[in-house]
Amino acid sequence: MLPPKENFSEWYHEVIQQAEIMDIRYPVKGLYVWLPFGFKLRQLVYAKLRELLDRDHQEVYFPTLIPEDMLMKESEHIKGFEDEVYWVTHGGLEQLDVKLALRPTSETAMYPMFKLWIRSHADLPLKVYQIVNVFRYETKHTRPLIRLREVTSFKEAHTVHRTYEEAEEQVKEAVKLYKEFYEFLAIPYLIFRRPEWDKFPGADYTIAFDTIMPDGRTLQIGTVHNLADNFAKTFDIKYETPNGDHSYAYQTCYGISERCIASLISIHGDDLGLILPFEVAPVQIVIIPILYKGWEEKVLELSKRLYDKLKGYDYRVTLDESDERPGAKYYRWELKGVPIRFEIGPKEAEKNEVVVSFRDEKKKFVVAFDEISKELIERWAKELKERLKVRAVENAKSKIVICNSVDEVAGAVESKRVALVYVCEDCEREIENYGSVLGKMEEKPEWLDVNLEGICAICGGKGYLVGVAKTY
Amino acid sequence: MLPPKENFSEWYHEVIQQAEIMDIRYPVKGLYVWLPFGFKLRQLVYAKLRELLDRDHQEVYFPTLIPEDMLMKESEHIKGFEDEVYWVTHGGLEQLDVKLALRPTSETAMYPMFKLWIRSHADLPLKVYQIVNVFRYETKHTRPLIRLREVTSFKEAHTVHRTYEEAEEQVKEAVKLYKEFYEFLAIPYLIFRRPEWDKFPGADYTIAFDTIMPDGRTLQIGTVHNLADNFAKTFDIKYETPNGDHSYAYQTCYGISERCIASLISIHGDDLGLILPFEVAPVQIVIIPILYKGWEEKVLELSKRLYDKLKGYDYRVTLDESDERPGAKYYRWELKGVPIRFEIGPKEAEKNEVVVSFRDEKKKFVVAFDEISKELIERWAKELKERLKVRAVENAKSKIVICNSVDEVAGAVESKRVALVYVCEDCEREIENYGSVLGKMEEKPEWLDVNLEGICAICGGKGYLVGVAKTY
Repeated sequence: MLPPKENFSEWYHEVIQQAEIMDIRYPVKGLYVWLPFGFKLRQLVYAKLRELLDRDHQEVYFPTLIPEDMLMKESEHIKGFEDEVYWVTHGGLEQLDVKLALRPTSETAMYPMFKLWIRSHADLPLKVYQIVNVFRYETKHTRPLIRLREVTSFKEAHTVHRTYEEAEEQVKEAVKLYKEFYEFLAIPYLIFRRPEWDKFPGADYTIAFDTIMPDGRTLQIGTVHNLADNFAKTFDIKYETPNGDHSYAYQTCYGISERCIASLISIHGDDLGLILPFEVAPVQIVIIPILYKGWEEKVLELSKRLYDKLKGYDYRVTLDESDERPGAKYYRWELKGVPIRFEIGPKEAEKNEVVVSFRDEKKKFVVAFDEISKELIERWAKELKERLKVRAVENAKSKIVICNSVDEVAGAVESKRVALVYVCEDCEREIENYGSVLGKMEEKPEWLDVNLEGICAICGGKGYLVGVAKTY
Repeated sequence: MLPPKENFSEWYHEVIQQAEIMDIRYPVKGLYVWLPFGFKLRQLVYAKLRELLDRDHQEVYFPTLIPEDMLMKESEHIKGFEDEVYWVTHGGLEQLDVKLALRPTSETAMYPMFKLWIRSHADLPLKVYQIVNVFRYETKHTRPLIRLREVTSFKEAHTVHRTYEEAEEQVKEAVKLYKEFYEFLAIPYLIFRRPEWDKFPGADYTIAFDTIMPDGRTLQIGTVHNLADNFAKTFDIKYETPNGDHSYAYQTCYGISERCIASLISIHGDDLGLILPFEVAPVQIVIIPILYKGWEEKVLELSKRLYDKLKGYDYRVTLDESDERPGAKYYRWELKGVPIRFEIGPKEAEKNEVVVSFRDEKKKFVVAFDEISKELIERWAKELKERLKVRAVENAKSKIVICNSVDEVAGAVESKRVALVYVCEDCEREIENYGSVLGKMEEKPEWLDVNLEGICAICGGKGYLVGVAKTY
């Protein structure tokens, strides 16, 4: 049995294990094992991310090991990472001449190569991405998929452009891409421009996607950085312009880690376990035959016909023929978030129909076998997604408080809510005292009735909307 | 321009770069960058490997970092790896309490977890695999895809069984799987049981797949190990038998690395570049419009119709509309191993037909546009594969010498050939003086007329067929 989702931390810890996403017993802090079911979910979610990026990015793979001098080259950048880089110092029994870092992110591995790749304006824009493991020596409390020492599935994209404006345009493109990705997963997000002191080390500015977890803390689930020509100057990435001059290139990078899976699990799940959108569910449909003496053959015959039909539509379907009681089967497949369940008992077998229920709803209804079609399943999948989205948005809204004073901000954060408050640039740093400042809201979510500009709650000057919360 | 393939080492070095498989300029020995074209090839080849394994294995992902005590637990195993393990000793500026190894292979990461997963006979067999990066501190000469410090694409499968016999059965299954994989790639292989002194550290025995490279050296492209209960005893992997006893489990593991890509490039390529089987070619078909003044529109119209038709069949097709001369286009796409080329000039546009040529043949022929169908392309793909296979087998045969004496063995190896010779168990070690002993031939290749048993060339006793060669 799972703890109630109300006790979110315990629930999360348990659902990860009981739904067989990960085994958390690997004997090193912050390292976990992806189990087959979890790994399949990961593959399906990342397949979508690949599909989106493949539209105009190319996939590459750079080495995991970065020599110390390369990693250290960009001084702002290394300051941001030096406390959390893992160092390889020995090969076999020998000490290495040059220490090698396990990539915490790949700017410093990639950009010396970009310097070699880029000669002329015709080589730009360059847009590549990779999905790789990255490493952080986390000293804080670690948590599967959220705070890790080996992030196993970091999607990092890196682009190079002619001008600052083109890089800025790419930042907008990346934000659009990430919106599409999270809408596909029915995960609500808030988009902030991180404050100066919290931007990516070496970036001009950082745009971040945050989602609100059930416990009211925000989880950063994607970031997009405009690097301007900061790294280009460090790594000497220049191109020849159409009129023969040489100019530094402008860059962006943007990443999503397996926190997208953490949000998927946390936002949609309930007391019974996972609830997965149809498109990414490792098992999309389960068929449960209800066997009564004398009816076994007829019930199994219809169950198998249904299985074959659904397989014919290319769905991931399981026919649960195990010996357990139906209740035990319901329990197992609910835990794993299977979106659609079909039950077939004697009555159904006789009338050539099936009982249908959806993972997110209590009600059951009957459909004639012959009415089940690919179109019908697709419609159910779409309706499920819509319901998940509505529910997730309601939850998110219930955890947001619009505040008019710093006291209200303090109260909201204290009571595990996300505070939105107007401040001016000068006063932004001051509210850091009341919670983590997520930054200036970059665009208004469709589902939130709020203006992006207002009066600074501290000095009364012209302010912009800022998020303040406890964060993961 | 490529060096002739005759100068294999230079040819390989150049083709990897010019065909845009990898960038070899990353500033650490033995680490390379997968370029988009190479990465796509890798994805396509590994998709096949996944398809084969997914039949009855489950994909997982274990951590990259293995604590020293876990890695050291199996004494035979660690002896085989201790000279080439990379050690992480520092996190940030702190020294770690326990050194962490970068996995050289994952037995010691996985098996402590298997101990937790396996309780009863009902949990067996267990069959999992992962495709991951592994690390070896190579002190020898490194070479892209062949001898690396980061093997980026190691497919390792691990299975657990009730008995030695079941493990042995699984070894045979794995050998069958690997045969299917290499037949799909049209790569000829020899299967040997490695001599005792060259088996996988900790294994009962090792079966290996070797292919013969153009320079007569063999390349190990897959291994299958019967681990018996050696690791089970070390890691205490026991199961409860049907009658309530507790018994150690029996294990196998088998792996294929990106050497499969190295063999694909090396075996099939020619002086002009890559030659790729249709199924794994990143670009399967290229269409080259031959533009003459006044005919541009008609030629491009037919080219685009052909492009749409082939896209409709879901092929990876490129219409090369660049401004270059046709010769330059031929050169580029030949280098990249595109299996099928269509040319369309004024004559073809007028007659609604296309000129066809295959990457592995000089001849061109004409086909009516309307005759081009999915069935026709599939047939061409199959015929291409068959031709590649015949050519590769001929090459392999020409590099094998059946020897009757150790002098002949020495001569064969000296002249860059693979020697096959009968020896008995007692004399096997002795021929190590004349080349690397590949081991006892495990099964006769279809294409080689040879008996597996004969008279020992050294002592005249009862012998078995052994391979001796220079190896990569």
